[in-house]
Amino acid sequence: MAILIILNQADPYLLEKNLKSHPDCPEVRIYPDVGNPDDIDCVIVWKHQDGVLNDYPNLKLIASYGAGVENILSDPSLPAGVPITRFVDNTLSDQMAEFVLGAILNHRLHLTRYREFQAASRWYCLDFIKGRTVTILGLGELGSATARLLTQNGYEVNGWSRSEKNIDGVKSYFGEEQLKRSVNEADYVVCLLPLTPSTKHILNNDLFDAMKKGSYLINVGRGDHLAENDLLDALHHETLSGALLDVFSTEPLPQDHPFWRHPKIHITPHISSPTDKAQVARQILDNYARLMSGKPLLNQVDPKRAY
Amino acid sequence: MAILIILNQADPYLLEKNLKSHPDCPEVRIYPDVGNPDDIDCVIVWKHQDGVLNDYPNLKLIASYGAGVENILSDPSLPAGVPITRFVDNTLSDQMAEFVLGAILNHRLHLTRYREFQAASRWYCLDFIKGRTVTILGLGELGSATARLLTQNGYEVNGWSRSEKNIDGVKSYFGEEQLKRSVNEADYVVCLLPLTPSTKHILNNDLFDAMKKGSYLINVGRGDHLAENDLLDALHHETLSGALLDVFSTEPLPQDHPFWRHPKIHITPHISSPTDKAQVARQILDNYARLMSGKPLLNQVDPKRAY
Repeated sequence: MAILIILNQADPYLLEKNLKSHPDCPEVRIYPDVGNPDDIDCVIVWKHQDGVLNDYPNLKLIASYGAGVENILSDPSLPAGVPITRFVDNTLSDQMAEFVLGAILNHRLHLTRYREFQAASRWYCLDFIKGRTVTILGLGELGSATARLLTQNGYEVNGWSRSEKNIDGVKSYFGEEQLKRSVNEADYVVCLLPLTPSTKHILNNDLFDAMKKGSYLINVGRGDHLAENDLLDALHHETLSGALLDVFSTEPLPQDHPFWRHPKIHITPHISSPTDKAQVARQILDNYARLMSGKPLLNQVDPKRAY
Repeated sequence: MAILIILNQADPYLLEKNLKSHPDCPEVRIYPDVGNPDDIDCVIVWKHQDGVLNDYPNLKLIASYGAGVENILSDPSLPAGVPITRFVDNTLSDQMAEFVLGAILNHRLHLTRYREFQAASRWYCLDFIKGRTVTILGLGELGSATARLLTQNGYEVNGWSRSEKNIDGVKSYFGEEQLKRSVNEADYVVCLLPLTPSTKHILNNDLFDAMKKGSYLINVGRGDHLAENDLLDALHHETLSGALLDVFSTEPLPQDHPFWRHPKIHITPHISSPTDKAQVARQILDNYARLMSGKPLLNQVDPKRAY
């Protein structure tokens, strides 16, 4: 029995070290040094290549290194019937909530714009942006934590999700037909949805046209939530006043991408919710122990919902 | 009886309009169109020239247009015995608190630095800054509101003031001899003191040497709280990692000032607590009515404390 680490765009040796710091850790191998494939009963994966999960006849658990599992579920040769878990922790939710609050305050107070003025030795005052209505698309772990933090800080918060949610002080919209209504009063629209076939390119011209003129988009979900050309159109026509984007269809964002040079787009390099390696190691080993003793897994993904 | 407006670096006509929107407003004049000086029983002042308050024999109230009154108290020919009031309101406190939270989050999350990376099409991730201990110098209206907001957002907050203060969750340091102890655990030091002879240049090398190596300074008090060359030294020697400065000894900051081009100094043009003209008008007219009916004034300044 052994755990196999298959990480892309993340450091497998750092994860191995964190796993091995626990006395209950089984043998750990790092792809492609698999050894005997029959030994592997658990894989930890991030952005794996399609097909590589298919070689382990005794596989009993696919553990996602992060919160998102779209790259696992989209693998056409995903072994059937093997449970999938994802990483969920409060640190992640708290960090995301702080990131969104920071992004909104940065925009309302123009902090980054003043730094741009500074580069030109320009002393020029702007009024604070008064609008404090925020719509959060997606009220899972991250979305709910963000909604709570914003509410605590005096923001009026609307949420949109697949089914109705009950969070103190948050107005709940749900289902396809309430999507546009959920955004039309918002000064800020924040995307924290899981990426599924039905949420791909949900941030498109149709939605932008339903948003308040001059509102601001924050995408901290996945790059493929955004129809990139539609955003360029919406900024050009001033339907939206700007956007902070932390995620992109291709990451790192290609050098020749028009977003880099766009004055109304603020780019951060997918840092809104960095994985805490110690926490992810602890959580995977807990689930591994549950697997061995036949207990129910924590944070198991429902492939139909895709999260 | 008439109110005389003497504003520099602020718009007297906008204030006049706000005053006159109230039915109880007496006659308003705008300096230098004073008319008969005997008519003036109240002046509203901001950054006036020394001596100009001396011409009104019936003056009964000097109302500061903003929260700071150092420019009034430093006038050597200030008419004796005339009460001075200052502008205090919750909007101001709330805005200041939000500004400080926004400045801290902006630094912790590196939002402005990422925009600088973006200008070079650079995809490069930094770790969030974990430190969340803040020392607020000055626990008046603005300092207390800021301490409360930071505490609510999970920061560990220390405060330093002239006398001991009791604010939930805020560790109180007070008096000259506790100043250095108050800052030595802080990741962020925020100056919100009134400017008095004893607080002038309080942000100096002595204090910086007592601060934690790599901590960050936020000055939203007054420009003269800061010994400017000492800050340049402290940044050069990496005693401090950076500073956000909203106030300066000379405003607007002169074009040739070294702060403009300093990579570790983030300049905002004295916008952390913009005066709400409607509020200031309402507050001054309330005090004017109190004056007429012999009631005690609100927000009266004690010239000995200087606030």
